Amino acid sequence: MTVVRTDVAVVGGGPAGLLLSHLLDRAGVGTVVLDHRSHHEIATTVRAGILEQDSVRLLVESGASDRVLTEGEEHRGIELAFGGASHRIDFQELVGASVWLYPQTSVFADLAEARQAAGGDVRFGVSDVEVDGVEGDAPVVRFVGADGSRQEVRPRYVVGADGSHSTCRALVPATARRQYHREYPFAWFGILCEAPRSAPELVYCRSERGFALVSQRSETVQRMYFQCDPDEDVSGWSDDRIWDELQTRVGANGHTLVEGPVTDRAVLRFRSVVHEPMRYGRLLLAGDAAHTVPPTGAKGLNLALADVRVLAQCLQDAVRRRDAAGEDALDGYTERALARVWKAQHFSSWMTHLLHRPPGESDVEEQRQLAELRGLVESTAGRAYLAEGYTGWPEARG
Amino acid sequence: MTVVRTDVAVVGGGPAGLLLSHLLDRAGVGTVVLDHRSHHEIATTVRAGILEQDSVRLLVESGASDRVLTEGEEHRGIELAFGGASHRIDFQELVGASVWLYPQTSVFADLAEARQAAGGDVRFGVSDVEVDGVEGDAPVVRFVGADGSRQEVRPRYVVGADGSHSTCRALVPATARRQYHREYPFAWFGILCEAPRSAPELVYCRSERGFALVSQRSETVQRMYFQCDPDEDVSGWSDDRIWDELQTRVGANGHTLVEGPVTDRAVLRFRSVVHEPMRYGRLLLAGDAAHTVPPTGAKGLNLALADVRVLAQCLQDAVRRRDAAGEDALDGYTERALARVWKAQHFSSWMTHLLHRPPGESDVEEQRQLAELRGLVESTAGRAYLAEGYTGWPEARG
Repeated sequence: MTVVRTDVAVVGGGPAGLLLSHLLDRAGVGTVVLDHRSHHEIATTVRAGILEQDSVRLLVESGASDRVLTEGEEHRGIELAFGGASHRIDFQELVGASVWLYPQTSVFADLAEARQAAGGDVRFGVSDVEVDGVEGDAPVVRFVGADGSRQEVRPRYVVGADGSHSTCRALVPATARRQYHREYPFAWFGILCEAPRSAPELVYCRSERGFALVSQRSETVQRMYFQCDPDEDVSGWSDDRIWDELQTRVGANGHTLVEGPVTDRAVLRFRSVVHEPMRYGRLLLAGDAAHTVPPTGAKGLNLALADVRVLAQCLQDAVRRRDAAGEDALDGYTERALARVWKAQHFSSWMTHLLHRPPGESDVEEQRQLAELRGLVESTAGRAYLAEGYTGWPEARG
Repeated sequence: MTVVRTDVAVVGGGPAGLLLSHLLDRAGVGTVVLDHRSHHEIATTVRAGILEQDSVRLLVESGASDRVLTEGEEHRGIELAFGGASHRIDFQELVGASVWLYPQTSVFADLAEARQAAGGDVRFGVSDVEVDGVEGDAPVVRFVGADGSRQEVRPRYVVGADGSHSTCRALVPATARRQYHREYPFAWFGILCEAPRSAPELVYCRSERGFALVSQRSETVQRMYFQCDPDEDVSGWSDDRIWDELQTRVGANGHTLVEGPVTDRAVLRFRSVVHEPMRYGRLLLAGDAAHTVPPTGAKGLNLALADVRVLAQCLQDAVRRRDAAGEDALDGYTERALARVWKAQHFSSWMTHLLHRPPGESDVEEQRQLAELRGLVESTAGRAYLAEGYTGWPEARG
């Protein structure tokens, strides 16, 4: 059995795990990254597409991706469409920030490439990953390599960046953890389609029939969503029916979509989940392993990258110093990360309730929602408050 | 039977009805105001105490009250207290506006005095008020005067400013009206007490035990509230128990109250109600007769005065012109008034949900609420958005 010693074993080779490995490597901290999925599987799973300004800065300044600036697309605002008209929220004018359209699959590809170029130890397609001893000072990670051989990593720290179904998370004993969980009566029917752009920026659309979101992927592939029942069955939806539903919702607010073949369709349920603490002994959790937000507001990937930015600093201190002050830095991780997570939970919940129609919505709530939308777009302060949240809060920058 | 002809019969002699009469009188439009309550009853009913900047301006510029500026108290901000600390929202700094502490009973007293000084026809303590013929062009208002004599007013228009239990409202046929109604799971236990001020400005306090509001009436009388069950029985509450509850809630956020004898206690239920339209033939509704908002945010009286400002303009046009364009002005009343009403419904609902703890609140919602509060006070845009709403929206000014 091969035994590898390293500073940090990272379970999960998605964007969070790879970025952490990249940042730690640059700081002279050794890592081994493991993922049970293949490179191909991660690279082709359709996920989010909007990066906050600070996420882009982190990718660029750390040397993880230049392509986000050349192939990604700067969006200087979004549209809020409701009540028969569309209203632009100009992020640059309001808060001097932008977001970038750059799919998570591209973030992953860039990070995987950067890790490979730097000779990073990243192992996809491993199986039977088992983590032990995180309560002590000598944790072990056992797994079966892609070649079938039994292997072991002996790190100082283990990071669980293994997504919303995290197995690492289960290592925190029930008595030491708390799970916050809320289901929403909302879901999105998400599609990918082969068509040119229907709009230059994201259009968040509130209609009588429910929410719709027009977004983009590239010149030839678009991503769109419409609010549906959480138990909706995608097999009941032909391309025609999907386009009719989307056109009706966006058409009510003056938009028209360019149609094309639907190549992917899936229902995304909405939940708010937070696991606390994000550190237990030598185990640290990051990204979806520790929290899930509703997708409205595009915070999921950005939160994962924000976790990693903080975690890389903490781990670097802890590994370098090997003393109590280093351990203290790790202790602060949960609090620093969760402050942003809860802020994002609020923002995501607010954006959701601002634009979706809940089942059984009262007519008072319907009129209140429309009045909130009108008041928000009429108010410079209101638009700026939204823009700050969407682009990622100024006080966290730098 | 005495018959009086006039331009506008106003049913309801509270602040809305009296201000309307005052404004119309200044524009040369005749009014008769009727109220089944006595002057004393209206003058001693404990109600709201916060006036928006534009409400004050309207009272002062129309000559209805100078005392609001001398005896009222300018509040240039409020405190939001939560999570162990108190955070000032500086209205002047954020949006260049203030609110005024000046009880509704004083507004009423000033208006009643102004009407009397101008020789206005205001009749308190009437009974058996009956309104007829608002669908035609010759409405009639019959009533029994305070002296027991049967009397009749023949106006061109009838205004129902007769409060949330409005009888005028019932004249709109069921087929022509729509009622929006929402009950909230919140209520306030409101007290008046004989004590000096506990804080210079209003303190909106979120605590584990629920919301509390520290407000003021004068140097020697204070008004305070705490969130309670809508079915709470005030008789179960001794002075000591009330003070314990209030001290615990505000103490958690660093405030201490100066205690004194409790002279009034009552439970205020929270509802959002909107009646549409606010005009039906020759009948027009204003204030609580047309809408009720939850008390958080202090919008009720201000909305009534805002209705009256718009309605006085419309009625003045209609009475002077006696033509189709005048009638058109009346048609626009509902839309102009309701735009502000729904904005206030949203604001009141938002302030309520921002600070109150709903029964059965999930732990996700609790953390989200705290994150919203933290994010709001950290953000200049967020504070300004709140300040705009609290002081009454800049676009409606002038």
